[in-house]
Amino acid sequence: MFITFEGIDGSGKSTQAQRLADWLQTCGHTVETMRDPGSTPVAEQVRALLLNPGVSIDDRAELFLFAAARAQLVSERIRPALKRGAVVLCDRFYDSTTAYQGGGRGVVPLAWLRTLHMQTTDGLAPTRTYIIDVPVQEAAARRHSEPDDRLEQEEMAFHERVRSTYQALAAEEPERICLIDGRGAPEQIHTAIRSDLQEVWPHNGAGTPL
Amino acid sequence: MFITFEGIDGSGKSTQAQRLADWLQTCGHTVETMRDPGSTPVAEQVRALLLNPGVSIDDRAELFLFAAARAQLVSERIRPALKRGAVVLCDRFYDSTTAYQGGGRGVVPLAWLRTLHMQTTDGLAPTRTYIIDVPVQEAAARRHSEPDDRLEQEEMAFHERVRSTYQALAAEEPERICLIDGRGAPEQIHTAIRSDLQEVWPHNGAGTPL
Repeated sequence: MFITFEGIDGSGKSTQAQRLADWLQTCGHTVETMRDPGSTPVAEQVRALLLNPGVSIDDRAELFLFAAARAQLVSERIRPALKRGAVVLCDRFYDSTTAYQGGGRGVVPLAWLRTLHMQTTDGLAPTRTYIIDVPVQEAAARRHSEPDDRLEQEEMAFHERVRSTYQALAAEEPERICLIDGRGAPEQIHTAIRSDLQEVWPHNGAGTPL
Repeated sequence: MFITFEGIDGSGKSTQAQRLADWLQTCGHTVETMRDPGSTPVAEQVRALLLNPGVSIDDRAELFLFAAARAQLVSERIRPALKRGAVVLCDRFYDSTTAYQGGGRGVVPLAWLRTLHMQTTDGLAPTRTYIIDVPVQEAAARRHSEPDDRLEQEEMAFHERVRSTYQALAAEEPERICLIDGRGAPEQIHTAIRSDLQEVWPHNGAGTPL
């Protein structure tokens, strides 16, 4: 099982990834949690470059830095972990690139992004993806509580595009992606994810996670 | 004019790029010389990561790091320089990725690489590309003079694939790429490049470079 968590900043996805990891471990699974970009020396260096506010990075360069970090993560950590039989939980993966660089920034056409993702991961797709969907205003309020200025408004429009791209992805790939209402209490959201996972967990004799 | 120089290591392309830059400057042109990857703060950081022997980089991650550096170089330096009317000379560009990562390593299909290049540069292609073609043994001898061991032999086979990919590219795109015999004296090769450039220089009233 390779499970990814997606959503706009402030959606609570990282919290949910950690809760699911804890629960799966309680069930006796070997769980490896990762973050994309990151979780390998090269990818963490790329992450540091991406997050450095001191350098100005072109939109296309940013797109390929994310792809580079992801390719390294897949080959160095995700594939080996899956081979060992671990459950891999990843905080963000290629749907983030589709939502942010594709839908949010419009850097490259979405159709071409699909081919980029397949080349980046050499065909590896998540078994299940949880998109934690919250209204943009609510996510912003969780991140900070300052009044909206012009920049903040621009940021709102950008995050609206990111959110709607996530929603469109969930509609396009219902067999892989589960859109989770992220407005409730964390415990409630965790329960929703757990019950979905028990339904879709591959019935190969190993049964459901619990 | 956006002119790129390509070839296997030891082909003498960097020397030829510098000689052509000097000559064009003598002719009164504003010339900007660059190297890919590199020539911007972000791209130089990516270059340092690519050349660091202490980190192991996955083939696909390497491919996208080159793309990221190139995207940054195009938007931050090449396009602005061309807009100012400068002649841009670049030591390596996307044909290197086709030859090394595509032909040499076989990381991704060559047909997909073409789409990657167009997305990386947002459609910008070199006006003229000089591939300095030398036999692999000769280029190796210029780089070092140690006897061939097993690794060296592998390296030879790899460079043969790189060289033949360059030759195939020149055959496919004769209107852009000029294959130059790199076995002669540097002065002789420089003359060949110069006479080709005088032929293909756009006749838009500005006339030939000299």
